[in-house]
Amino acid sequence: MISLKSSLEEINQMNRGTLMETLGIEYTEVGAGFVSAKMPVDHRTLQPSKIIHGGANIALAETIGGLGSVLLVDYTSFDVRGSSISANHVGTAKSGWVRARAEIIHRGERTHVWNIDIKNEEGKLISTIRLTNFIIPK
Amino acid sequence: MISLKSSLEEINQMNRGTLMETLGIEYTEVGAGFVSAKMPVDHRTLQPSKIIHGGANIALAETIGGLGSVLLVDYTSFDVRGSSISANHVGTAKSGWVRARAEIIHRGERTHVWNIDIKNEEGKLISTIRLTNFIIPK
Amino acid sequence: MISLKSSLEEINQMNRGTLMETLGIEYTEVGAGFVSAKMPVDHRTLQPSKIIHGGANIALAETIGGLGSVLLVDYTSFDVRGSSISANHVGTAKSGWVRARAEIIHRGERTHVWNIDIKNEEGKLISTIRLTNFIIPK
Amino acid sequence: MISLKSSLEEINQMNRGTLMETLGIEYTEVGAGFVSAKMPVDHRTLQPSKIIHGGANIALAETIGGLGSVLLVDYTSFDVRGSSISANHVGTAKSGWVRARAEIIHRGERTHVWNIDIKNEEGKLISTIRLTNFIIPK
Repeated sequence: MISLKSSLEEINQMNRGTLMETLGIEYTEVGAGFVSAKMPVDHRTLQPSKIIHGGANIALAETIGGLGSVLLVDYTSFDVRGSSISANHVGTAKSGWVRARAEIIHRGERTHVWNIDIKNEEGKLISTIRLTNFIIPK
Repeated sequence: MISLKSSLEEINQMNRGTLMETLGIEYTEVGAGFVSAKMPVDHRTLQPSKIIHGGANIALAETIGGLGSVLLVDYTSFDVRGSSISANHVGTAKSGWVRARAEIIHRGERTHVWNIDIKNEEGKLISTIRLTNFIIPK
Repeated sequence: MISLKSSLEEINQMNRGTLMETLGIEYTEVGAGFVSAKMPVDHRTLQPSKIIHGGANIALAETIGGLGSVLLVDYTSFDVRGSSISANHVGTAKSGWVRARAEIIHRGERTHVWNIDIKNEEGKLISTIRLTNFIIPK
Repeated sequence: MISLKSSLEEINQMNRGTLMETLGIEYTEVGAGFVSAKMPVDHRTLQPSKIIHGGANIALAETIGGLGSVLLVDYTSFDVRGSSISANHVGTAKSGWVRARAEIIHRGERTHVWNIDIKNEEGKLISTIRLTNFIIPK
């Protein structure tokens, strides 16, 4: 079972056979209310114009905000479901990795709201995202 | 060059070596102000709980809204850049394909706003997205 | 109690002493899954540059989407609470009235998602909004 | 003309005959990249259930993010226009004042992106908003 006591390696292994493996997403840090990860900027995540696809960034954001909520609830009793998400793209990346960090803004009984910032290799903010997850009794 | 006169096959070939190929996205219809596409629900797009990843849906949405804008501008003089996007996830998909259709809501000089609806195999709406693209002089 | 059987006049009277009265909002049509209303474009809703304030449009949208949800639930057992909202402003209004229509996109057990379009006197779309309401047991 | 050299009193006077006066919005601090303001929680801003109307909060947010952009551009050459906005409501207010602070996240040539947080009398976050403004040559 996934919990805050799981090692990063264990948590990353859960991504086998999923979108996260497809995109090359790797978690780099997890905790109570925050998750960080990186994603490669390569053929897997580029758009035809050879800059990172904004949709890849949002997939990364929804991934780490979702994991963040899973780690905060009793996952035997509750499901986490992404409900709404909004994003601003304010920069781009052409190579290397993008790095994302999710921090919880609101931890309610039924909803979690996360802010996720994504930066390129130069440390410049390229996308900033708000994700609302529902916490649903199983 | 990509234009409304290009064949679907030509347009789909532009996706080689990009996120779209990674996710298995295929355009199925393009026109002046609309684009349709499908995406497989499989290991490439699932989340660990074996339902489609919301982020994959948004990547699909941003893809077809982006292509829609590219097809509406003189791409030798203007760039299209995704600026902001918001989405509601209201259902899910577990297998087969998801099918998305983008329709333009607002075609301004500097911005295009698209609505994108995504449905599962049963025809149920699962995600509905609003995308704003900037049209930037090169 | 407010219900679909209430007259428009009764429903409009509920707005006394609220933001809706402040802004001059009047409901013009209500039903199961839709609500229409109008709002004056005057000193109450303008910005300093003498065009309608985008925030007034969003207040109008959140108002009619909220009423729409109230009319769909058993309001003795459930509360309706606006959770997230996103909007695109694509035009403006300088005088007369703006007219808004909310239509439900997703009617779930715990959430309602509404689309709200706002048009100016010329019938041009000026703002389009997505509102998510929570349906919370009292 | 409005500029960072204007006094708070001068800037507040610009709100006469506008939505801001209607809602009782008062700027409390302005600077290069930030604006703070307060808004009363009373008959002007309440919903029928006697808590603050989410739409009033968004109007407040769009107001101060808009002023923030106006103060950053040469307003004789450029117009500022609210383009897209997204908000999460995570708490409420029943009396006193709500206090909002806008801080710029992205200051581009053609767009500004603002984060706006709104807190109630107890200092609890009740709404958090992202606003994108266009900067348009006159």
